[in-house]
Amino acid sequence: MGFLNDPCLRRANLIFLYCCVLSSFIQSAVGVKSRHFKWDVEYMHWSPDGVEHIVMGINGQFPGPTIRARAGDTIHVELTNKLHTEGVVIHWHGIRQFGTPWADGTASISQCAINPGETFVSRFKVDKAGTYFYHGHYGMQRSAGLYGSLIVEVAEGEKEPFQYDGEFNLLLSDWWHKSAHEQEVDLSSQPIRWVGEPQTLLINGRGQYNCSLAARFSNSSVSLCKLRGNEQFAPQILHVHPNKTYRLRIASSTSLASLNLAIGNHKMVVVEADGNYVQPLTVDNLDIYSGESYSVLFTTDQEPSKNYWISVSVRGREPRTPQGLTILNYYPTTVSRLPPSPPPVAPRWDDYHYSRAFSNKILALEGSPKPPAKHDRRIILLNTQNLIDGYTKWAINNISLVLPSTPYLGSIRYNISKAFDRNIPPDHFGHDYDIMNPAPNNNSMYGSGVYMLNFNTTVDVILQNANMLKPNNSDIHPWHLHGHDFWVLGHGEGKFTEKDEEKFNLKNPPLRNTAVVFPYGWTALRFVADNPGAWAFHCHIEPHLHMGMGVVFAEGVEQVKKIPNQALACGLTKKMFMMKDEHN
Amino acid sequence: MGFLNDPCLRRANLIFLYCCVLSSFIQSAVGVKSRHFKWDVEYMHWSPDGVEHIVMGINGQFPGPTIRARAGDTIHVELTNKLHTEGVVIHWHGIRQFGTPWADGTASISQCAINPGETFVSRFKVDKAGTYFYHGHYGMQRSAGLYGSLIVEVAEGEKEPFQYDGEFNLLLSDWWHKSAHEQEVDLSSQPIRWVGEPQTLLINGRGQYNCSLAARFSNSSVSLCKLRGNEQFAPQILHVHPNKTYRLRIASSTSLASLNLAIGNHKMVVVEADGNYVQPLTVDNLDIYSGESYSVLFTTDQEPSKNYWISVSVRGREPRTPQGLTILNYYPTTVSRLPPSPPPVAPRWDDYHYSRAFSNKILALEGSPKPPAKHDRRIILLNTQNLIDGYTKWAINNISLVLPSTPYLGSIRYNISKAFDRNIPPDHFGHDYDIMNPAPNNNSMYGSGVYMLNFNTTVDVILQNANMLKPNNSDIHPWHLHGHDFWVLGHGEGKFTEKDEEKFNLKNPPLRNTAVVFPYGWTALRFVADNPGAWAFHCHIEPHLHMGMGVVFAEGVEQVKKIPNQALACGLTKKMFMMKDEHN
Repeated sequence: MGFLNDPCLRRANLIFLYCCVLSSFIQSAVGVKSRHFKWDVEYMHWSPDGVEHIVMGINGQFPGPTIRARAGDTIHVELTNKLHTEGVVIHWHGIRQFGTPWADGTASISQCAINPGETFVSRFKVDKAGTYFYHGHYGMQRSAGLYGSLIVEVAEGEKEPFQYDGEFNLLLSDWWHKSAHEQEVDLSSQPIRWVGEPQTLLINGRGQYNCSLAARFSNSSVSLCKLRGNEQFAPQILHVHPNKTYRLRIASSTSLASLNLAIGNHKMVVVEADGNYVQPLTVDNLDIYSGESYSVLFTTDQEPSKNYWISVSVRGREPRTPQGLTILNYYPTTVSRLPPSPPPVAPRWDDYHYSRAFSNKILALEGSPKPPAKHDRRIILLNTQNLIDGYTKWAINNISLVLPSTPYLGSIRYNISKAFDRNIPPDHFGHDYDIMNPAPNNNSMYGSGVYMLNFNTTVDVILQNANMLKPNNSDIHPWHLHGHDFWVLGHGEGKFTEKDEEKFNLKNPPLRNTAVVFPYGWTALRFVADNPGAWAFHCHIEPHLHMGMGVVFAEGVEQVKKIPNQALACGLTKKMFMMKDEHN
Repeated sequence: MGFLNDPCLRRANLIFLYCCVLSSFIQSAVGVKSRHFKWDVEYMHWSPDGVEHIVMGINGQFPGPTIRARAGDTIHVELTNKLHTEGVVIHWHGIRQFGTPWADGTASISQCAINPGETFVSRFKVDKAGTYFYHGHYGMQRSAGLYGSLIVEVAEGEKEPFQYDGEFNLLLSDWWHKSAHEQEVDLSSQPIRWVGEPQTLLINGRGQYNCSLAARFSNSSVSLCKLRGNEQFAPQILHVHPNKTYRLRIASSTSLASLNLAIGNHKMVVVEADGNYVQPLTVDNLDIYSGESYSVLFTTDQEPSKNYWISVSVRGREPRTPQGLTILNYYPTTVSRLPPSPPPVAPRWDDYHYSRAFSNKILALEGSPKPPAKHDRRIILLNTQNLIDGYTKWAINNISLVLPSTPYLGSIRYNISKAFDRNIPPDHFGHDYDIMNPAPNNNSMYGSGVYMLNFNTTVDVILQNANMLKPNNSDIHPWHLHGHDFWVLGHGEGKFTEKDEEKFNLKNPPLRNTAVVFPYGWTALRFVADNPGAWAFHCHIEPHLHMGMGVVFAEGVEQVKKIPNQALACGLTKKMFMMKDEHN
C-alpha cells in the first residue's frame, strides 16, 4: 500500500506544502534574513593531527561552525566567552562592516575583548556574496584554533557569473604542537624564540602528523596515515560524480604558511578571490596566502575508476612541513583506492617568479568596479625587522605597533587623549634607505599612532619589502585590510619609485582584502576611505602581527553612531563611562 | 690619613646623621608608612625545577617580590597586567581588608579581573604582624606560579612575644610540568582528567626534578642535584651561626600538596600560625597545609662542623613527589659538605592520628582574643564529590560553586538582580546522609548563591567531610576564609552531632584563617561577621576550588563605601555604570 494513500498523511503533506510555499513567499517578500547563532568559545582536548592538544573551539567544534548566509542577510552572533581567564574576540574576515565598525571583531581596534563569562552580540550585514572566514583577533588566538568558514551565497534570485553542479569548502590552516600561549611568550622573549615551521598542515582542521597518505611514494620509512574513521584527524574526502563541475571554495587561515593547492590531474579555473569575481583563470595549482580566499571550478573529466590527490604544500619558506593531503573520490570508486601516482609537486618554495606571475594573473571580472584614476594621498609603508631594547620586532616606517588597551574606535570617537600616540606615523621612509641590506641602524621604536584618512578620499598604499635583520633574507608578507576591499594595482621588484606608477594596472585590477608583498619587492594598493571606523591593516602572519607588523587607519569616525557601550567597556573608554558615576 | 679627618666629609656626615635622625623622627611621629609597589605581571620562561616552562612572574621574578611592612602600614600595589589575553588578580592571603573589601583580590567576589594592558591599584592596611603571602585568585593562576611572600613585622616600638637573632622565610609550593591552562581544561573535561601529583616540591620557588641532594642515601640510581650556582633552581641555603636562635617563617602556597617540614637534628618551637601568636609548641616536624603559615624558632645548638637537612615532604596523599630539600649551613662549615645522614623522614602520609594531634596542639597564646561563648547561627557544610551532567565536581550541601561574571561585592552592594542565584544555599544537609559511603544519589547542581550573614553576629561553621565518589576515599581539605580569622574550636572524627559541641575548645582555640578538615571528620570554626564585604570561604586546594569547592559569605555590604568603579567594571555592574550613558 502506497504511503500517500493514507488520507491523514496526505492532508498533513498538503499542509506542509502550503506552509513551505507561504514561508518562502514571506522570505522572498522580505528578501533577506536575520541569521542567529549562539556560540560558546572554550578550550577543549582535540587531535587536529593525531596528537592531542588543547584547541580553542566553538560549541565543541574545531574548526568552528560554518556560517552560511545570502548576500543582504544580517548575521547575529551571540558569543559567550567560556574560557577560564582569557578574553576573546572574533573578526569576520572580508566582511566590510559598513555601518557597524564596532562589529569588526578586532581587540584594541574595534572593540574590547569579551571577558570570561560575558556575552557579546556581533550584528552585521553580509552585503556581498563570496568565500570568507572568521577567526580570533586577540593575542594569537587564531593560532590556538579559533577560526571557521563564512560563506555568503548570492541573494535570492541572483546568479553567480558561472555555473556548477556541486560545491566543497576547504579551510586551510597550519598547526603547531606548542601552545599559542607559549608561542606568544617565545616571540616576546629576549632573545626571541621563533615559532619555527608548523608541524602539520590542516584541511578543514584535519591533518596527520608523522605519517603520509602518500607513504608508498616516499623514499623515507614514513608510515601510511589512516584514511577513514571517526577520528578528528581523518581527512575529509571530497566525493564527486564523473563529468560534473564543482565549485571549490578555499580560504587560508594559516598562522604562518603560504600554501599551494592542487588537485592531481585536474585543472582549476579561478573565478573568485576574497569575495570578488575575477576573470576566469585556468591553472594547475593555486598559490594562497594567509588571509586570502578563492573559488575555483573543476570538472570531473578524468578516469572515474581512480581517485585523485588534493594536496596542500608550503611555499615562500623552505618547507619543513609535509604536504597536507586528502582524496578526490570519484563515484563509484571505493574511497580506499589511493591514487596510483604521487601527489602533485608544488612549484619550488622560492620560485617567486612563479608566485608573482600567479598573483599578476588574478584580474577583475569585466564589469567590476574600477579604481579612481587618481589618488589623493599615497602612503608608503616600509617593513623592516628591527631590535627594540634587544627585542626582535617588525616595524613599519620604523614604528612597531603596540596595541593600546582602549579600542581606537572609541578613543577616536570620544577624543580621549592619551589613549594612543598622538604622533602621526610617517607616510614614507627615508629616500636613501637600502632595502637590499639590513638596516645600518636597526633600532626602531614602539608606537600606537593612527593614519587618519580624510573621508571618501582615495588612498594609495605602497607596501615596500626590505631585507630582514639577517643579511640576504626577506620574508613574504600577506597584508590584510579591515573594512575595505582594495584594488591591487601591481607588484614590482626592488624599491618603488614614482616611475613605477606607469606600470599600475588601472584597467582591471582585482579587488581584494589581502595582498602579498614579495621579498625585496613592492605592492601597490588603492582604496577609497569610505567606511567610517578604525581599521587594522596588517601582515596576516600571526607571529608577525604579534611582533608589531601592522598599522591602523581611521576615517569618518565622527560619523559613527550607536557603538554598543559593551564594545568600549575597557581601558580609558571604560573609565570615561564610569567617571560619570564616581560618587557612590 | 683617616677618612673623617677631611672636614668636608665630616660635615657631610653630620648632615647625613642629622637627616637620618630627622627622618626616623618623622617616621616614628607618623608611626606608620605607605609602601608603594609597581608590579608588572607577565609570563616568562623559568626553570623552577631545572625543567624550563612558562611561569607567571612579577617584575621578572618567580616567586614574586617579597613585601615587607610593619603593622599599621598601608600597602599600595599598582599592578599592571602584561599578559597577552588573560585577566589577572592578586589576593593578599591573611590580610583581613577591614574597610577595603574591594582590595581582597578575588575575581568574581571582591573585584573584576584586571584586563591585559590595564593597571589596578590595591590599597590596604596590614593591621596585624605575621607571616602572610599573596597569590593569584583567578582561574588557576596560583598554580601557574603567581605567588610571593608578605611579611608584616610588629609596629615600630612594639615587641614580639619571643626573641630571635635572625630570620628566614620559606614559601613552599608544588609544581607541575603541565601548564595551569591545560590543567584547567583537564579538570573541566568529561570524564575529568585529574592533575595527579606534582612533579616537584619548591622551596622559595626552587626545586630539582629527577635528582636528589640526598642521592647517596637513596637505593635507586637517582643522580645528585646541583647544590650551588646561579641556576634558577639552585636551592636557597640557610646560613646560620652556632648557638643562635632563628625565626623561620613558613607559608604554603601549594596547589594541592599537604606538607611536612623538618630540620634534621633540630627541634622547632611553633610560635605563630596564620598571623596569630600561639602557645609555644616544641616539635620535631611541622604539618602545613595549603593556605597556612607558621613561624617557628630553632636554636643552632648542634655540632657546627656539619650541615643539616631542611626537608619538605608530602602528607595526606600517597607521595609520588620526592622530598624538597635544602641545607642549613653552620658557619664556618663549607656549604658543599652535605649532611652525613639521610634527610628527616616525615610521618606516614596517612597517619591522620598524627596530623590531628598536631593540629590540636596549636593553641592560642595566653592573652589572645577569646571566642564569644555562643553562636548566633550555625552553618554545617558537607563536602561531597559529585557528578553534574557527567562532570566531576565538588559540592557543598549539594551545590557546586560556579563564580558569576559580576563580582558579588558589587552585585550585592547595588542590589543587581540576576547577577547570582538568589536561592539561599542551605545551612545544613540531610540528617540521614551517610558520610562513610559514596552518596546513593551523587547528582548535585551548580549554584552561585550567597550565605548572607547578619552583621556582627557570631557564626559557627562545621566543615563535614565525607566519602568521595570512589568508595573508601576521603580527601583532606584545608579551608581558607577571606576577610576574617576564625577560632578553630575542634576537630572530630565521623559525623558531627550536637553532642560534639561539648568537646569544643572555648578556652584557648587558635585564631587562624585556614583550617583543615580530615578524611571522614569534622572541623568546627567560629567567627564574628564583623567585616563588611563579600568573602570567599573555600578549599585552598586549587583544583578543588576550580571544581566548585567553595561558598561565599557576605555581611554588612550596605555599609561598604567607596568601591573603586574599576573594581566593578565587568559583568552586570559594568552594564549598570554604562546604561546611564547608553545614548551616544
